[in-house]
Amino acid sequence: MSDLLFPAEPGQRAIARELYGLARDLPLISPHGHVDPAVLADDEPFPDPARLIIVPDHYLTRMLLSQGIPPARLGVPSRTGEPSEADGRAIWRLFAEHWHLFRGTPSRLWLERTFETVFGVTTRLSPQTADEVYDALAEKLAQPEFRPRALFERFNIEVLATTESPLDELAAHAKLAADGWGGRGGRVVTTFRPDDVVDMEFEGWAERVGRLGELAGEDTGTYLGYLAALRSRREAFIAAGATSSDHGHPTARTLCLSAAEAASLFEKGLRGEADATDAETFRAHMLVEFARMSIEDGLVMQLHPGAVRNHNRWLHATHGRDVGGDIPQATEYLHALTPLLDAYGNDPRLRVVVYTLDEYTFSRELAPIAGGYAAIYLGAPWWFLDSPEVLRRFREAVTESAGFYNTAGFVDDTRAFCSIPVRHDVFRRVDAGFLARLVSEHRLPFDEAAETIVDLAYRLPKRVFRLEGDK
Amino acid sequence: MSDLLFPAEPGQRAIARELYGLARDLPLISPHGHVDPAVLADDEPFPDPARLIIVPDHYLTRMLLSQGIPPARLGVPSRTGEPSEADGRAIWRLFAEHWHLFRGTPSRLWLERTFETVFGVTTRLSPQTADEVYDALAEKLAQPEFRPRALFERFNIEVLATTESPLDELAAHAKLAADGWGGRGGRVVTTFRPDDVVDMEFEGWAERVGRLGELAGEDTGTYLGYLAALRSRREAFIAAGATSSDHGHPTARTLCLSAAEAASLFEKGLRGEADATDAETFRAHMLVEFARMSIEDGLVMQLHPGAVRNHNRWLHATHGRDVGGDIPQATEYLHALTPLLDAYGNDPRLRVVVYTLDEYTFSRELAPIAGGYAAIYLGAPWWFLDSPEVLRRFREAVTESAGFYNTAGFVDDTRAFCSIPVRHDVFRRVDAGFLARLVSEHRLPFDEAAETIVDLAYRLPKRVFRLEGDK
Amino acid sequence: MSDLLFPAEPGQRAIARELYGLARDLPLISPHGHVDPAVLADDEPFPDPARLIIVPDHYLTRMLLSQGIPPARLGVPSRTGEPSEADGRAIWRLFAEHWHLFRGTPSRLWLERTFETVFGVTTRLSPQTADEVYDALAEKLAQPEFRPRALFERFNIEVLATTESPLDELAAHAKLAADGWGGRGGRVVTTFRPDDVVDMEFEGWAERVGRLGELAGEDTGTYLGYLAALRSRREAFIAAGATSSDHGHPTARTLCLSAAEAASLFEKGLRGEADATDAETFRAHMLVEFARMSIEDGLVMQLHPGAVRNHNRWLHATHGRDVGGDIPQATEYLHALTPLLDAYGNDPRLRVVVYTLDEYTFSRELAPIAGGYAAIYLGAPWWFLDSPEVLRRFREAVTESAGFYNTAGFVDDTRAFCSIPVRHDVFRRVDAGFLARLVSEHRLPFDEAAETIVDLAYRLPKRVFRLEGDK
Repeated sequence: MSDLLFPAEPGQRAIARELYGLARDLPLISPHGHVDPAVLADDEPFPDPARLIIVPDHYLTRMLLSQGIPPARLGVPSRTGEPSEADGRAIWRLFAEHWHLFRGTPSRLWLERTFETVFGVTTRLSPQTADEVYDALAEKLAQPEFRPRALFERFNIEVLATTESPLDELAAHAKLAADGWGGRGGRVVTTFRPDDVVDMEFEGWAERVGRLGELAGEDTGTYLGYLAALRSRREAFIAAGATSSDHGHPTARTLCLSAAEAASLFEKGLRGEADATDAETFRAHMLVEFARMSIEDGLVMQLHPGAVRNHNRWLHATHGRDVGGDIPQATEYLHALTPLLDAYGNDPRLRVVVYTLDEYTFSRELAPIAGGYAAIYLGAPWWFLDSPEVLRRFREAVTESAGFYNTAGFVDDTRAFCSIPVRHDVFRRVDAGFLARLVSEHRLPFDEAAETIVDLAYRLPKRVFRLEGDK
Repeated sequence: MSDLLFPAEPGQRAIARELYGLARDLPLISPHGHVDPAVLADDEPFPDPARLIIVPDHYLTRMLLSQGIPPARLGVPSRTGEPSEADGRAIWRLFAEHWHLFRGTPSRLWLERTFETVFGVTTRLSPQTADEVYDALAEKLAQPEFRPRALFERFNIEVLATTESPLDELAAHAKLAADGWGGRGGRVVTTFRPDDVVDMEFEGWAERVGRLGELAGEDTGTYLGYLAALRSRREAFIAAGATSSDHGHPTARTLCLSAAEAASLFEKGLRGEADATDAETFRAHMLVEFARMSIEDGLVMQLHPGAVRNHNRWLHATHGRDVGGDIPQATEYLHALTPLLDAYGNDPRLRVVVYTLDEYTFSRELAPIAGGYAAIYLGAPWWFLDSPEVLRRFREAVTESAGFYNTAGFVDDTRAFCSIPVRHDVFRRVDAGFLARLVSEHRLPFDEAAETIVDLAYRLPKRVFRLEGDK
Repeated sequence: MSDLLFPAEPGQRAIARELYGLARDLPLISPHGHVDPAVLADDEPFPDPARLIIVPDHYLTRMLLSQGIPPARLGVPSRTGEPSEADGRAIWRLFAEHWHLFRGTPSRLWLERTFETVFGVTTRLSPQTADEVYDALAEKLAQPEFRPRALFERFNIEVLATTESPLDELAAHAKLAADGWGGRGGRVVTTFRPDDVVDMEFEGWAERVGRLGELAGEDTGTYLGYLAALRSRREAFIAAGATSSDHGHPTARTLCLSAAEAASLFEKGLRGEADATDAETFRAHMLVEFARMSIEDGLVMQLHPGAVRNHNRWLHATHGRDVGGDIPQATEYLHALTPLLDAYGNDPRLRVVVYTLDEYTFSRELAPIAGGYAAIYLGAPWWFLDSPEVLRRFREAVTESAGFYNTAGFVDDTRAFCSIPVRHDVFRRVDAGFLARLVSEHRLPFDEAAETIVDLAYRLPKRVFRLEGDK
């Protein structure tokens, strides 16, 4: 067994190995991620290594951008008509020339371990070995056992949640259900992510709201029709297996407007007259509205605040959204969540998993809130905070006030299907190391640490995200 | 000797053991806490284990609340007339069923060590052993050597400060003094905590101010009479052994109003016309006023900002204050303290011990302020920050700019009398570990580390809190 | 080889030793500091130990101030006519009496190692040994091999940047150039620090702007003349070897005013009518203006925000600037830098090295910005954050999003010439320890760690600060 990420001190390392051994082979629970469900619905072979691994991964392209390499040279499609590199091998070589930039980063860890454990490629990547690695990966990708569903089985994924807009007709999920892979209690389920029909600042929001009405057969020209349409789409998502919703707002702000106030704001938005404050107010109000819906229909809410989207304006202009131009901002939770907590914080029917991009809230706000309100769970550190270092700091900062059982387990949050196992593996290893320290410092007996690591890796995410249900 | 909390690496662990050995048996200095002085004045046997250990400990009840167990089921008295569980054993069993929630928390550590070292109960708590542990504790509690004063002696407490309102007539302390346990230089002393007569937002503030006048024989209908009454109560507290005052404000804000401005605000408050801003302004001003009084009468000021009190509204409505419904908020120190620092920051007669619930100020504000102003000392991490992890992070963050000698030593800050020894023990162990790392990294010779740990555990708190004085 | 600062676990320590061995003897690159260039231009013997080591070091005098020892007693000159201690030996003795205050601080580490490695004095400082250490140091300081240039050679400094105002006529640098030590590509170069002619709140700003015009032969009565004068002085600084500018603003705020707006504000300032908001606006605008100049003339920008200057008012009144009265404040980067990033963030011709006194921005803002914009590099933790602990936390927090290669290497930032080698040595040791952990946890192969430590210690600062150029 590899000692990857285990503490160096031999006594602690031995405990960590033993704890990790209990979690290593548990099925993967992936309640939050961004794999395209069509990948599993269609089960087509993956494209070439560069298109599979580099082009869609903004962790990779943004690091090269930070050293002056424009994303077009790495094949990222442009929306201005500028040409992008089309040759997978050329992209791969350019990437390999800059591989040293990733030393010490999670991307390095994930890629290297994916090459090795998924593809059996152990040649170390370097400018010299770029072609060799590329060819070895390409050869594997051509084989049937590297098709998505075969890998899904091999990865031992018990359930994988994808993320869709209410405007998505869920065709891929319907196909998965028809094949026995999807639907309620299925292996691949959807997640209800309404940001693009809630956030008035989203490009084309009013048109989207109209489209929402068409899909749901409701008149979204009125606020009540809009709510009804959202409820209707939630039902459709639940039928497609969804057990949670996801809300990616700039801030954690919540607000209880009266129905009349909300309706008036909604109509202002439809008339195109809403300003930034109106948009923030409406988002804040809708979080409380969604909490009410959750209490009715049981969807677990996920709240992902803190990203300033498209901060890199040039990047947004040339390549669009989700290509590495977002940056976190300071995020206040306590006062922002107060209206929601006042309304439903002690209601055990509600469950809200709160994430952060601002680790400087861990011990001050997040852990005390999760350790004091029945409705709140803490999501794993994500995105800019998904390194082994932060996973460790998370436990070191939140366990005091929230314990282990107000946290929600790992979410891989990834588009990169092939990296799912290694991401979960890293989390299990870091937790094994943290628990090993508690054991080594005589703060937790080994048998309780053993139960805890299985909870963290498997039972807890399954329970918190209500994935035990209808099977 | 147990290796609890020591670093795992054998070389460092050996140094830590040796350093800890020098501090382990030193008398306990407890300059800040919330033990009811009547417990020691009356020296009655403690109640049953549940009423002693669980019911009054909001660290425990809030964790269960966070998993949907209402405090009434744990015996927390309700103020709405709803029944609370009255059977100690039933409370204990329910608690034991949820014992796993505390894995990795300080509460687990304190309780487990208290059972073992205070009561000699080594059976591990679990749903299965709940009755066995309960009975063993109950049996001990019935014995005379487990009465409060006997434990006080056994715990080797040199001095214990309790905390009282200026409205308290200090009867318990008078009894302690009569028994040779209290008064100036006594073993049990009081602390002057005027929040409830300073904070206009405190329920019934105006009535309290009236009562303050009666107690002090001053006319608190005027601002000058109010100041005179506070001075008079401070004298009474000093006679009851107080060497410090304590100020638990929402923020660290200070302000120098003119006497006329302060008087006008005070009168506005008495008329019931003060708003939230007025209340904050008056609290801020009174901190500077108290600093002036401290320079005259020598009381060390303690400043405990950062808690949003009664954040959990439902909990406050059903169970009142101090039952786990407070949450920390981001706390700014530098600009907030500027008026106080401008006035008296360089005056060595003034001593202000500053605490925080926001560890994300350690290296940025708190350590530079304490390392640059003669009047400021840093209090130990408290409440949401009293885990071994934060005690370690505190040293790692503040030592650079404040050193060891601008910190004030440990305060246990507890209502839980029986947990006092283990809390101090944890602090001594963590400091031993931190110093052992300095020694192991060749940054501090062993003999200086040895002197330092004795200073931190004993000499420093005694000196900073002026507890050396009149004996 | 000393194991100072290496991890305790023997396996990791062995790796750290080996990595450190590769960096230990590399030449020192010092791209940012405050050594007086006259020291090297004149090459006079250093004064007595107290005047060399204690009097000018505000890290030392502020720590004693925090315990009530006024700076005048340590020889810090007063500007109020009050006498200051003049006897070097008396200063030294007083300092030695308080040496314990520095346990665990970087100052202790630097001084002790400087005594030992620079002066060969291994007697441990204490009240008892004060005279012995003083005499031993004084004896060395009298020898020719302890003159500045001899030490410069012995320290193996490849290049040292000093910091000067645009009003400095650069006479010392001219002498250095004449001696073959200075000028473009020289061993001692200057840095362009325009704060005192940019910051309208700087005492005597308008007079300084007038003096700038005289020096540059431009009419700084107009905004355009002011810009021309700045450009002209930049050219003079570049001729004196400068490869970077330095900007020490209270905040990181940037702003793009139109030329007309900027001119109007500038004129308001000259008329003495600018308020604090105007001053902040003008500083913010000038940062973008300087970025434009940098794109033209190639100077690397250094941005040092976050210090509240002269916070200790009494200290400022009695002893002036830069004597330990500054305190950090919370610093926001993302929104503050947005105007600059929108304008030039993706321009690889621009290079901005951003520093912080607020470590609670490392993972949230600084690393994501540096890892997403071509123009931004992260400077090493400085001033209140230059302990081994923070150097380690810096790597642990920023590597995830910025990697190693968006950081700029170490800057010693010191006035204390003799402490330069030990400061760089500490950085190299901490990086060796961090990399050893990555190797030990199987996250980085040894050979890549070996390449990385050489990059961090030598190649990277040389490249980032454009010190490879014209030699």
